[in-house]
Parts: sequence; structure tokens; C-alpha cells
Amino acid sequence: MTQTAETATDTTRQELDALLDAAVAAAPVLAAERPAERALRLRAVADALDAAAGDLVPLAVAESHLTEARLTGELKRTTFQLRLFAGVLDEGAYLQVTIDHADPDWGMGPRPDLRRMLRPIGPVAIWAASNFPFAFSVAGGDTASALAAGAPVLLKAHPGHPRLSVETGRIVSEALGRAGAPDGAFALVTGVEIGRTLITDPRIAAAAFTGSLKGGRALFDLASGRPVPIPFFGELGSVNPAVVTPAAAAARADAIAGGFVDSMTLGAGQFCTKPGLLFVPAGSDLPRLVAERLRSVPGAPMLNASIARGFAGALGDLAGHDGVEVLVDGDRDGGEAPAPSLLRTDAATLAGDAESLTEEAFGPAALLIEYRDRAELERALAAIHGQLTATVQAADDDPDAAALLPLLADRAGRVLVNGWPTGVTVSWAQQHGGPYPATTSVQTTSVGTAAIDRFLRPVAYQGTPDALLPEPLREENPWHLPRRVDGVLHR
Amino acid sequence: MTQTAETATDTTRQELDALLDAAVAAAPVLAAERPAERALRLRAVADALDAAAGDLVPLAVAESHLTEARLTGELKRTTFQLRLFAGVLDEGAYLQVTIDHADPDWGMGPRPDLRRMLRPIGPVAIWAASNFPFAFSVAGGDTASALAAGAPVLLKAHPGHPRLSVETGRIVSEALGRAGAPDGAFALVTGVEIGRTLITDPRIAAAAFTGSLKGGRALFDLASGRPVPIPFFGELGSVNPAVVTPAAAAARADAIAGGFVDSMTLGAGQFCTKPGLLFVPAGSDLPRLVAERLRSVPGAPMLNASIARGFAGALGDLAGHDGVEVLVDGDRDGGEAPAPSLLRTDAATLAGDAESLTEEAFGPAALLIEYRDRAELERALAAIHGQLTATVQAADDDPDAAALLPLLADRAGRVLVNGWPTGVTVSWAQQHGGPYPATTSVQTTSVGTAAIDRFLRPVAYQGTPDALLPEPLREENPWHLPRRVDGVLHR
Repeated sequence: MTQTAETATDTTRQELDALLDAAVAAAPVLAAERPAERALRLRAVADALDAAAGDLVPLAVAESHLTEARLTGELKRTTFQLRLFAGVLDEGAYLQVTIDHADPDWGMGPRPDLRRMLRPIGPVAIWAASNFPFAFSVAGGDTASALAAGAPVLLKAHPGHPRLSVETGRIVSEALGRAGAPDGAFALVTGVEIGRTLITDPRIAAAAFTGSLKGGRALFDLASGRPVPIPFFGELGSVNPAVVTPAAAAARADAIAGGFVDSMTLGAGQFCTKPGLLFVPAGSDLPRLVAERLRSVPGAPMLNASIARGFAGALGDLAGHDGVEVLVDGDRDGGEAPAPSLLRTDAATLAGDAESLTEEAFGPAALLIEYRDRAELERALAAIHGQLTATVQAADDDPDAAALLPLLADRAGRVLVNGWPTGVTVSWAQQHGGPYPATTSVQTTSVGTAAIDRFLRPVAYQGTPDALLPEPLREENPWHLPRRVDGVLHR
Repeated sequence: MTQTAETATDTTRQELDALLDAAVAAAPVLAAERPAERALRLRAVADALDAAAGDLVPLAVAESHLTEARLTGELKRTTFQLRLFAGVLDEGAYLQVTIDHADPDWGMGPRPDLRRMLRPIGPVAIWAASNFPFAFSVAGGDTASALAAGAPVLLKAHPGHPRLSVETGRIVSEALGRAGAPDGAFALVTGVEIGRTLITDPRIAAAAFTGSLKGGRALFDLASGRPVPIPFFGELGSVNPAVVTPAAAAARADAIAGGFVDSMTLGAGQFCTKPGLLFVPAGSDLPRLVAERLRSVPGAPMLNASIARGFAGALGDLAGHDGVEVLVDGDRDGGEAPAPSLLRTDAATLAGDAESLTEEAFGPAALLIEYRDRAELERALAAIHGQLTATVQAADDDPDAAALLPLLADRAGRVLVNGWPTGVTVSWAQQHGGPYPATTSVQTTSVGTAAIDRFLRPVAYQGTPDALLPEPLREENPWHLPRRVDGVLHR
């Protein structure tokens, strides 16, 4: 298991070169192993992180300014996630084993024996995010799913929590090593300039990123512009529109205002799933109710000064936009614990300049948009780019909800009814992704068990004697895998 | 059903604009339909094409110079493929329905009800290929899988068979229309300049292409460089290395020479799966045996003069390369029915300049590469870029085969043992894809039932009342779909 020095000095080009060579050497070793081996390792990493909670959580509190309760919960999520992927490996459906026996009478002409499964894609580069020091960082969802897939990981640490990154990286490396992982299966790298080198290196086969639109797009462009382009799984940002139907506004405005304020101020608004836009029927009480509640929410420390400055800048741009009114004037001066802000506009104004008005302000602020009728609402929604989530607050038997859902599903990866988008569970059905610019890869998810698909690729074996086949494809099904045989699914 | 005029005049910008609007309008209609509706339509298209075989095949013979037998078989493959996708829709596993019920005791904290399925990606642009006037053209695999997915199709006709394209497009459009497809579900567009407009239009959500490396890479770059990048599924070219182990060469050199010559000259060598490289043990009889057989294969007409010229150019470059010897000197003057050619080099020369020596010569030519030992062979294989297929000719209990298979699987989408790569069956386990430059999307296939995945994207619904859910996600499973519920697969 390779790792950088415990001090957060930048990885040198020479060190990176050696780490990349080690990853390349590890790739075929991992590809040849049984998934059950990797499952044991994921559990070993989870155990080691849980055991180190007493050291890691205080370090995370110090570097991120998030609360101990939040970070304790996040570490629990992180180790739960590692164990969930271990279960995915033990079940084995993720391999998508498909067997077509030779068939001389196949409709289009004789068919050879053909067997298909997924294999690891090769060494991957992963960029840690700042806002989840555990769950989207060194041992986060991208790392868990890549290690589960059998892809060696080069993890670019986020400078927002350098000591935590190095310490987490050390624990991951040591646990993997003790559990028999090949040298090169995981390595932490640090440094601002190293990202460009990593994304363009021919030894890297895929990349995953969570962060800003600007940074993510720059990396996506580098990944796509390589002589050999590689898949780039970037989650870049989202303002997560929520729509309150007239019937819902009439039935439970108070509860909606409360839920919205709780969700938009959670973690000082520093979630990619923060509801940043709330569409409300014109003339409803909601702007007043939301504003009242929001005024009672105190400022909370931002992750770091750079994020606080970025938030103040984006919020200032929004507040200064023609047709936007400031309802709750929280701190907009770049302070490190800004009180929350609330802005208001109307649907026609939003539809007229969605580009500016739906730019993410990463922090405790939101924009209320008043709409007069469904036609106006639909025009505004149609003007909004791709989103991670879209929410509708509806009443029972609400005709607006039925009409809005397909529209929201066209724009987002996750659609919620009567819930709020913060709080992204890790499970089989989760979809954390969406059309650009929510992500650069609309067909994948970065949370949930399906995230493993990003680091796999299919290979078919034709006419291959049983003894030469990878074990999952052998006739007797030695691993008892779910598989499709001659077109029929077998559990 | 919209279509262009029956004469092959180019689609104008205004016409294209109207067709794109129609596709956008059709997308939600298709997304809301039951897959069973689309299955009926695919079968209707297949029936209509079969019924028109008497018109279509002679048109294809005239425009492609391929034989009537080949084209009759190819049309059969094409309609078989449409019906196979209809079966995929009837079964419904392609929707990947995943249901997680709400769980207050979920390991990382209470879980909401979450349900995930795949939905159509939106309007897609498809570029027809020249070398399969039916199976990779207007009603080919890309069209069949996109229509199956519920994605509206704009089909860019290939200028190599203009009349056949228009006639096939008319039959597809009419059959879809009679079977109740919305206007805009399918349209044929023509013209050299139209491709650039199509790939950059914001109404297009994904694209599929089969053709040259140069043309495909240009389109990929445009797709990736858009303000909103889109997935580009490009199949760009392959030289399909085949390796003969020493044991196989000793045991059955004659049969191997025969199989290789048949495969490389099939369809005048104009297949993306033509074996263009044959690695043989130094000192074996294979060069002599292959050369002897090849000399008896007559020239066959190429698809068109442009392809014949391109072939002659690529072949001339190879023949003129240092360290390459011409064993069989077929026609290299750009004639329209060139006799096949055979070249020879050694593994060290190939490893030294794989870039030039593995460039595709699309036509009846191949390069034999002599290797002295496995180390030299492996170095040469490692120097070769991504491939659609890789083949090993092995003996029983051949230690070389076991060692080579993982290496070949790292480089190709389909690995064959003791077969030849031409002849790509359409089935569940097929994988027609591979690392760049074989394709621009190493994680997908353009042939076989999994090709439908390219035109779908996941959406999760959280906390959604049953009546508001898309039917596939409803609790009672009204369509009797295979699904995963709370982590457990149900057939």
C-alpha cells in the first residue's frame, strides 16, 4: 500500500509517477481476484475507520467547522457505505453475467457460445470534495465504489481538510494492506497542480469528481481532449428546484415553510442538494412564512474562508439582479458564519435569465419564485438546466403534481414528492446524478450501489473453453451468481 | 411520422429545425408510453422491411456492390434485431426497476421510500455506416436500440447508399406511423454538412456513430465541447489482433490459415471486425500457408471508389514502412475490386511503432507479425491500442492461452478462442465495443440487447405516492417486471 508522507506536502511528479506505475501493476491483480476478497477488504477499511473515530472526528471538526454530531453521523454513513458495497460484491449481480450458449438454429444464423461480464476499468483518479470530509472525500462513495469494482484508486485530497485527508488515507492504506490488497490499490496524492497531471496521464482509465462547475468542466474538457479520452464522472452543482402547488400551499404552508428552511440551512447550506429555488403560487403566504422562520436561524460557520467568499459573491450577484428583491438580508459581506438570506423574484423573470438566476450560491441562501399559473411555472422550469434533484410539494389527489412529475423527471436525477432533497440515503435505488451541469455523465450515479457501474466495463468471451473462462462465466456457476442464460434471468 | 423527400436532396437547415422540434415533442409522448407499445412498433417495422425485401435487396446490391446473398442475410439480421429488442421491451428487465421501501432502521439512519428506473434519454442523432447498408444503417442496431429505449431518432443517412437509405427510411417511417408512433419518433436526414449542425444542436441528447476514426473523433470532440456535453457512442475502427500460440501453430496450421483468410477477405475485408493482425510464432509455416491461400482469393468489389482509394492509401503506407515486407502483392493502385494483400513484420518492429503499424486498412489486407517468445509477443500486444476484438488460436491445455486471455481482455471488448472475429451475432451476451479508438465509450456496446442502455438514463422517485409513480415502479408491479426490492432480486 503506497501513501504519501504524513505531512501535507505536495506529491512530487516523481512520486506521482511511481504511484501511477504501482496502480497499473495492481490493476490486473485486482481484476483476477475474487470479489469476495475485495469485500473483506472493504469491511476491514470500514472497521479501521470506525475504530479511529475518536481521532478522525475531532480532526474533521477542526478543519471543516462542521459539528461533531454531523461529522460523527457522516463517518457512520461512510463506513456503512463501504460495508454496503461489500454486500454488493458478495451477491455478484453487479457483474451482469450473461451467457448465450451456442445455437445452430438462432434466428439470424448459427450463434457461437458467447459469455459477457463486467471487468474493472483500470486505474481511476478521484477528486475529493470539501463539503463532506468523510462521505465524499478520501474514503467516500467514489473510493468505495471504485475499490469495490476492483479499480486501483489515486485519490486527490481536498486542500480544505489536509490533515484529515492524510490521516484517513493512512488508515485506508494500512487496512487494505493488512487485508492483502496489492501495492498500488490505493494512494493519496496532494497538491493544487497535480490534478491536471493526473487527468491527462495515459495510465488513468477513468475519473470521478465532486466540486464546482468551473473546476469540474475544466477537468472534463481535459479528460475528453486526451489522445485517448476517458470517462469523467463529474458532479458539478445543482440548485434543486422545489415547487409548491397551489393546493399544497393552501393546505400546509406552515409545514412547507418549516421543512424548506430546515433543508436549505442544513450544514450552512453547503450541500449539493440544498433546495436553492422554491416556486410558490403568487399571493400565497409562503414568502412571509419562510422569511419569518429564516430570520430566526443563526449564522453557522462555513467550511472555509474561500467558500464563504464564493458564497458572498454569488449571493451578491443574485441580489443585484434586475427583478430580484431581498426578503431576508443575511450576511453578504463574506463573513465566515453568514446568517441566511432569502431572495424573491417571479417566474417570468426567472425564465428570462435562468442562466444567471439559477447559478449555485453554495451556502445558506435561496430564491423564492412566484408563479401565476401552471403555464408560467412550466416555462420557468423548462428554462432551468439539469439538476441533481427536483421536488414537488403537493396535496392529496393534486392534479398539478401528476402533470409536473414527468417534467421534473426530465430535468433531474431524483424527484421527490413532499420531501426535501438534503439527506441522500445510500441504498440500491439511490440516484445521485442528473443532466448537465448537475453532472457530466447523465447516465450514472455517484451514490448508491449502482455507483459501482462507473468503474466497470463489459467484455464478452466467444467460444472459450470452460477452463479458460473467468470463474463467473463458467458453466457450473461456481460463485452462484444471478445471471441471464439464453435470455432468461436466473436468480 | 416526418420524412424527407424521396429524392436524396440534402435536408435544409429549416427542415432539420422542424424535425428536431418534432423529435423534442415526441420525446415525452414516447417516455410516457408502455414499452409494449413500442415492441409492437418494432415488430411492425421488421415486418414491413421483410415484406419489402424484393425491392430493398436489389437496391442495396446496386449501391453497395455487395452480393445478393450477403445482403439478403443482412436484411434478415436487421429484422431479427428489431424483433429481439421487441422481446427486451416485453420482458422489461432493461428498466432496472429498483425499489427500496422506507426503513426507519436503515444502518446509516432512516431511509425514505426510493424507487429507481431507467427512462429514455431524449432525442438522439445516429450516423449510418457504409459497410452494412441494412444492419448498421437506417434501420440498423443503433436505430433499433434507440427506438426500443423510447428515444426519438434523427438518422443521418450515409451517402454511400442514398436511394436505399431514403427507401428504408420511408418504410420505417410509414410502419411506425401506422403502428401509432408520434410524429417525430423517427426521421431521416441527408447531407454532408448536416452532421455538424446535428451534433451541436441543443435538442439532441445523445449520438451514435459507426465510421472512421477521423470522422468519429471530430464528432466526439464536438459532442464533448458543447455548452451542454452529450454522450457520444462512436465505433471508430479496429484491427482485431489474432494470436496463434506455438502449440496451435504446431497442431493445425492449415486450418488456422484457412480460417484466417476466410475471415479477413469476407466482404472484401470491409468489416470493423476483420482480423488485420495475425501474430505467429517465428519459424512457423503460417506465413507460407496464409500467402498460398490468399493468392487464390480473387478481388471483390469495394463498397465505393472512396473506400477503395482509402484502402489503397493505408495499404501503401503499411507496405512502405521500414521493416515491413510484402508477402502477397495484391492490387494497391486504388482499383475498385482489389486482390487481397499480405504483409509481414516482426513483433519488435510492431512494438516500436504500433501507432503506424496498427492503423486500419479497411479492405482485403492483413499484417502477419512473427514473434520469438511470449515476452516479445506481450510487449507488442501491450503497444496496441483498444480493439473491438482480440483472438487467440490455441491448442488443448495450452498454457499460452491462459496467460494471454486477461491481456487480450484488457485491450478488447470481445475475446475469442479458436474462432474468427467477423460474424457478430446479435444476442444478450454480445459486446461490440472496446477501449479507444475502437470506440469512444468503452462501457457500452452497439450490438446485442445491452445496446439499449446507451439511450436510457436513471431517475429515482423519493416518497412518491403510488398513484403518482410511473407504472413500472408501483408497488403491485402491474407489468410483472423483474425487479430488485430492498436489495433482493425478484425474477
